[in-house]
Amino acid sequence: MAVYTDVAVEDLEVFIAGYDIGKLLSYKGIAEGVENSNFLLHTEAGHFILTLYEKRVAAADLPFFIGLMEHLAARGLNCPQPVKNRKGEALGKVAGRPAAIVTFLEGMWMRRTDARHCAAVGEALAQLHLAGADFPMTRANALSVEGWRPIYDACADRADGVQHGLTETVAQELDFLEAKWPRNLPQGVIHADLFPDNVFFLGDKLSGLIDFYFACTDTLAYDVAICLNAWCFEQDLSYNITKGRALLQSYRKVRALSEAELNAMPVLARGAATRFLLTRLVDWLNVPPGALVKPKSPQEYFRKLRFHQQVKSIGDYGVEARELTA
Amino acid sequence: MAVYTDVAVEDLEVFIAGYDIGKLLSYKGIAEGVENSNFLLHTEAGHFILTLYEKRVAAADLPFFIGLMEHLAARGLNCPQPVKNRKGEALGKVAGRPAAIVTFLEGMWMRRTDARHCAAVGEALAQLHLAGADFPMTRANALSVEGWRPIYDACADRADGVQHGLTETVAQELDFLEAKWPRNLPQGVIHADLFPDNVFFLGDKLSGLIDFYFACTDTLAYDVAICLNAWCFEQDLSYNITKGRALLQSYRKVRALSEAELNAMPVLARGAATRFLLTRLVDWLNVPPGALVKPKSPQEYFRKLRFHQQVKSIGDYGVEARELTA
Repeated sequence: MAVYTDVAVEDLEVFIAGYDIGKLLSYKGIAEGVENSNFLLHTEAGHFILTLYEKRVAAADLPFFIGLMEHLAARGLNCPQPVKNRKGEALGKVAGRPAAIVTFLEGMWMRRTDARHCAAVGEALAQLHLAGADFPMTRANALSVEGWRPIYDACADRADGVQHGLTETVAQELDFLEAKWPRNLPQGVIHADLFPDNVFFLGDKLSGLIDFYFACTDTLAYDVAICLNAWCFEQDLSYNITKGRALLQSYRKVRALSEAELNAMPVLARGAATRFLLTRLVDWLNVPPGALVKPKSPQEYFRKLRFHQQVKSIGDYGVEARELTA
Repeated sequence: MAVYTDVAVEDLEVFIAGYDIGKLLSYKGIAEGVENSNFLLHTEAGHFILTLYEKRVAAADLPFFIGLMEHLAARGLNCPQPVKNRKGEALGKVAGRPAAIVTFLEGMWMRRTDARHCAAVGEALAQLHLAGADFPMTRANALSVEGWRPIYDACADRADGVQHGLTETVAQELDFLEAKWPRNLPQGVIHADLFPDNVFFLGDKLSGLIDFYFACTDTLAYDVAICLNAWCFEQDLSYNITKGRALLQSYRKVRALSEAELNAMPVLARGAATRFLLTRLVDWLNVPPGALVKPKSPQEYFRKLRFHQQVKSIGDYGVEARELTA
């Protein structure tokens, strides 16, 4: 949650004048998204989100993200829809930064999730995977298995200071993951960051998905594994099998999971836990002590990884391969 | 700009249910206000601001702030209007914090101000002073002349590290201000923090004033002096006499400034510069190095203080006592 770049009214008015969305009535920097600066705009035409892309997002990737949101919205997925200016462009520049205006999605992200939310997320994730199937662009996942060891190498010497045993555990885990990572499962567009703060609800109903700035082309079942990590653990970091079952069962009602995908789930879940463990570790080690914005603890994902390492089969996540593929 | 306290959907829905503003459709933490956590709410009844009062705001002062906004709004001033719940209360509790819902004001604060904005602010400030005249509550200004030396004493030994000569300059200035501070000028409700980010415009027209959480009972002309500091200097910290003249002339068209008030302006402006210099100094010294949120520099107000120390009379601010009181 951050506003990194502020925007002057005069600059924003010039930018807005290129769009058919009326005059600007108000705008507020909002605490949403960790990679970019986001503003809620109110214009004569309604409410929109203005995103200024900060340095952590590569400019070369922006056409993929913008194109993907357009593609998914056109296929009926509730996600922010890029608004085009009068020249037909969805990507512009404000305050020296690449910028885009997208439609505003009503709804709220759930700070406390239950099994119904998990079911809704499973369904929406499968819909996303199906809707993305004919998206023509691709983007490699820099944070997949090949990307983990360089991150680890950069902070291995300091990892034990965060959590005793972390250095050794992750070293062994990387050896395991690099050897066992499933390479032949169905690929496609994945969200890759579908955490609770990126899923909006109105009442019990899922109203939309946001923040496609980690989206990429990768193993679809890996996206499911990320969601198991993000949605199905309790505050005390115990795995909630009811939530896991709800998520997986709802997913497969929309898109079938093959036996190979199901059997790979424990390894994929270990990989997902390792990925978030490593990026959180980097953030943790690189924020100065006493900073006002505390990064999220890597220990949470260390404990989730420990859980997945004990898992014997997909059954431990709440479903049987048989009932899912039946 | 900060969201210090996050709020769970479930807790907010329970809170909202006590009001006649329909169901919650969305809420976003916004980067507005430095003392409190602010959320933009969208409900079936429209848009509102939810403020959670953090520890820096004394709970005992909240009835003054809420009462003042109600009072001013009832007298036609464009400011946030507290919304009462079904029990008739404007002050409640969310996430363990005192909280209030106020109406949403359209408009934007100007990052770059010109003389027209300064004229509009002068007029609005005078309207605020008149509208506040019959407000029955009072609140002492903890950040007036008596409050400055304790702040200085707490950081005098480190002040020279921020700006060479600061310790000695402020020590002498406090001696001067304590001896010369005008005590018999008209008193009333002052905003005490009417900086550009607390004044909204739609086009050239001032659309509202916000953030009454420094408001108190004090010398009215001191509020004018704060605005001269906040609005009438350029980026290079040179005083813009055209802006100063616009602000003062517009003010007196609504509320006359007496000769005593005008003659006191140089001292009041020195006091205002000292007040912001000191609070910024404290913030500057107490934020850890490398923190993600940089406090504002105290040096800006050191240079403004230097300017005011050279001022000989109200004429140096852009107006003559004669033309103002004629």
